[in-house]
Amino acid sequence: MIRRLHVDVRSSCSFLGTVLKYLSLTLFFPTGIALYYRESPVPFLVTLVVTVVVGVGLERLEAEPRLDHREAFLLVALTWFVVPFVGTVPYLVAGTGTVADPVNAFFESMSGFTTTGATVMGSISVETHSRSIMMWRQLTQWLGGMGILVLMVAILSELSVGGTQIIRQEAPGIKVEKLTPRIRETARALWLIYAWFTLAAVVVYYGLHLAGLAPNMTAYNAVAHGLTSLPTGGFSPEGRSVEAFEPIVQWAVMLFMIVAGTNFALYWYAWRGRPERLTENAEFRSYILVMGVIGGLISTLLFLGVGLATVPESVSTIPGSVERSLRHGFFQIIAIVTTTGYASMDFNAWSDTTQVILLFTMFLGGSAGSAAGSIKIIRWYVIQKSMRRELFRLVHPEAVRPVRMGTTGDVIDEETILGIFVFVAVFLTLFVISTVVLLVDAHRTPGLSLSALEAASAVIATLGNVGPGVGVVGPMNSYEPFSDAAKLYMIFLMWIGRLEILSVLVILTPTYWRS
Amino acid sequence: MIRRLHVDVRSSCSFLGTVLKYLSLTLFFPTGIALYYRESPVPFLVTLVVTVVVGVGLERLEAEPRLDHREAFLLVALTWFVVPFVGTVPYLVAGTGTVADPVNAFFESMSGFTTTGATVMGSISVETHSRSIMMWRQLTQWLGGMGILVLMVAILSELSVGGTQIIRQEAPGIKVEKLTPRIRETARALWLIYAWFTLAAVVVYYGLHLAGLAPNMTAYNAVAHGLTSLPTGGFSPEGRSVEAFEPIVQWAVMLFMIVAGTNFALYWYAWRGRPERLTENAEFRSYILVMGVIGGLISTLLFLGVGLATVPESVSTIPGSVERSLRHGFFQIIAIVTTTGYASMDFNAWSDTTQVILLFTMFLGGSAGSAAGSIKIIRWYVIQKSMRRELFRLVHPEAVRPVRMGTTGDVIDEETILGIFVFVAVFLTLFVISTVVLLVDAHRTPGLSLSALEAASAVIATLGNVGPGVGVVGPMNSYEPFSDAAKLYMIFLMWIGRLEILSVLVILTPTYWRS
Ligand SMILES: [K+]
Ligand SMILES: [K+]
Repeated sequence: MIRRLHVDVRSSCSFLGTVLKYLSLTLFFPTGIALYYRESPVPFLVTLVVTVVVGVGLERLEAEPRLDHREAFLLVALTWFVVPFVGTVPYLVAGTGTVADPVNAFFESMSGFTTTGATVMGSISVETHSRSIMMWRQLTQWLGGMGILVLMVAILSELSVGGTQIIRQEAPGIKVEKLTPRIRETARALWLIYAWFTLAAVVVYYGLHLAGLAPNMTAYNAVAHGLTSLPTGGFSPEGRSVEAFEPIVQWAVMLFMIVAGTNFALYWYAWRGRPERLTENAEFRSYILVMGVIGGLISTLLFLGVGLATVPESVSTIPGSVERSLRHGFFQIIAIVTTTGYASMDFNAWSDTTQVILLFTMFLGGSAGSAAGSIKIIRWYVIQKSMRRELFRLVHPEAVRPVRMGTTGDVIDEETILGIFVFVAVFLTLFVISTVVLLVDAHRTPGLSLSALEAASAVIATLGNVGPGVGVVGPMNSYEPFSDAAKLYMIFLMWIGRLEILSVLVILTPTYWRS
Repeated sequence: MIRRLHVDVRSSCSFLGTVLKYLSLTLFFPTGIALYYRESPVPFLVTLVVTVVVGVGLERLEAEPRLDHREAFLLVALTWFVVPFVGTVPYLVAGTGTVADPVNAFFESMSGFTTTGATVMGSISVETHSRSIMMWRQLTQWLGGMGILVLMVAILSELSVGGTQIIRQEAPGIKVEKLTPRIRETARALWLIYAWFTLAAVVVYYGLHLAGLAPNMTAYNAVAHGLTSLPTGGFSPEGRSVEAFEPIVQWAVMLFMIVAGTNFALYWYAWRGRPERLTENAEFRSYILVMGVIGGLISTLLFLGVGLATVPESVSTIPGSVERSLRHGFFQIIAIVTTTGYASMDFNAWSDTTQVILLFTMFLGGSAGSAAGSIKIIRWYVIQKSMRRELFRLVHPEAVRPVRMGTTGDVIDEETILGIFVFVAVFLTLFVISTVVLLVDAHRTPGLSLSALEAASAVIATLGNVGPGVGVVGPMNSYEPFSDAAKLYMIFLMWIGRLEILSVLVILTPTYWRS
């Protein structure tokens, strides 16, 4: 074959093969769970064979694969498409519930590996599905979270996608010239931190159970929620999400969500004896400030009662109660800002006002260098600084004044700033178009009545990898009523949103393949 | 007095005095209308005295006023605040209807001079109000439109507000070094075109009446609609807006709305024998394309019937009718894109889907260099070009490639691009905050039930100077039910939106007054 392309497709496929090979190892975990609970291990053994065969086959395509920036783009897009695709096998082989349907299985698997947490399961329970299948569902999020940390810190930031190069300013000081060793080094550091925090979450959740404070936070539940907290995933084996647990568990989950939405590079510095890098960090300070302000606003509205549309018995105890207003206000805002998507109550009982605040909050996103999705705080921080600079420039047209990061004073170069603005513009454009697409599709879907607010929330919940929206896609509901076409479209949104959009769009340009 | 400020407040006030002095001349028009219809001319004579006294007084503050860029910012902000304030006098002296209330009068006057077209009149008719008061209402829009043309083309573009410097690339080739003579020269050219087009609109509207095609397009109505077409104003003395007229009138109004939303500098070139500058212009082409695509989409949805929520008798004839679907689809989209805000039907009968498309369309705006409001097509054009450039840059990280304007190939400098992005970011931020403000305020307003979509539409309709929104603020309704606080807030939105936001914000920064 004559090589006319400027992209080495074989190399990208070969690296993908390696990813699948490593993925196969993780299947021993749900297999073990299945054997422990005397359930069938067949779904996982089939998947194991598939991943090994496909993985080894792809890996052999190229003996010495090279990873230049074009191959990296292709690898990233392929990985987050093929892995979720293979991840459907356990659901399909098990054949229980709504996820026995191929489109539903792909939706659930993509939602897992992208740490979105949107579900098409009609009945979320270990009775309908087995304990091992439900654990596989949580595991996809934990694995996805690992992948995203490396993607953000080591790959996309090197490729300067949508201003992500700003992460390099805060990223571990590992200086490696070539892309492959750099990914390996960074991955090792991040995954260690990720694993330790996961363990901490499991220990705390189960500790509350052992202390008698959380009767239904069993060992199974502790592991399940530990696996979906750190990746800001939000899947829960409980149909009512974290509402199923005691208030003290909800406060503990809030803590781990905040941890999960923070830039992991800052933990790396703290670990190396420089904890002040955390508190001095401009993004971290904005992240805490934003959650404080919006959480306070929602809590106040709940306390006053105007935050609730209806006052059914289940929520009538919130207005006038300081603890309940604060807990539910802050839980939802932390869950949304970190894009985890857990819920401590069904916010479909909220008023239009509080639901709209929630919808707008979904555009914020957690910190860069975490597994959080959506636009992310650092981008808003840079935009806010650019606004101030623009006002200064209007008064002093001749002055040259760079945009700087808060306390460190590092200069952000103009190309990064423009990259950030372009990213936000593309994100919002895709949001607008997709909202119209879902609304138009709903007209031809029997049994689905979709309001403007619901459609908008479904789009930002999937594109921003948040998970639940409002109304029909609320936290205690499911995306099952949508048409197959709409589900495939949202699979696309979860995928492209997770990869910071531009890294996928670039592959669709002719200039990527030519010249 | 020791001059410590870097802003010459006296000079700005002196220029404002001159503006008021000229404004007083325009009062002879409604006075004449009053005398013709044997109505009281007192409201206008009182206003005449007020404007002359205040105008001459302010003018004398500074014998030789200078207009540097800081004074220009102050002058612009003051003018669009004081003129609408003085413009309340006719409503207050006449004392008829809801606009006899001071806050309502200020709302109506600000809505007029900013060419927004949002109304707080409870009953829109020449019976409740006199013919001369209604003509004053149309006249405020015509005068506002004149002001905005000069503001955009000669002032804000010189001050480089929000990327408006891009207008200079298309603006008349008048090269004047100092700001004052430049404003004078540009104003003369623009106003001549503006006046001729206004005359053309009146002649066409009245011509249809004389030809027997439009029985109720009387001379009064022809003048009234002529005065509010060219400034993209949208006020109508008819309570049902342009729905009150025959289909052929609606098609004629569409034509003049398209004319009004086009960059007036292009007409200047056409007049000087270079009409190809119009069809080659990148913004003009995008403007036509955008209206074609969205208008076609809405027309299709109306034709299929899914664009309508309910099918009452009044709209039941639309689905299946090509002419009606096209007319109502395109009329509304042209009215929204040009930010005129006329309506050919009550789009509150539309479905959520079509209403949401309308809401998103409100963010587009007409052309720069016209009296249209909102974000404006040229900004979206530059944003779209920047997106493409960013994708190219991801593939070729080392390449330096400027962003260029369509057929002319003019390079847009990076500072302009960033100014445009910053403007859009500020616009959207203000939109989000204001939507929440209106929703929260509605909770304490008796008799006002505001949905999320209605609140969002009220904000973009005022901030973008569009006029009507959806639901309670729909084209056949009024902003009267809002609280005084909410009305004052929307007065602020119309004012700041009209002045491209940043030119007002800059005055609020300490650095503007110091250093
Ligand atoms: K999530
Ligand atoms: K208007």
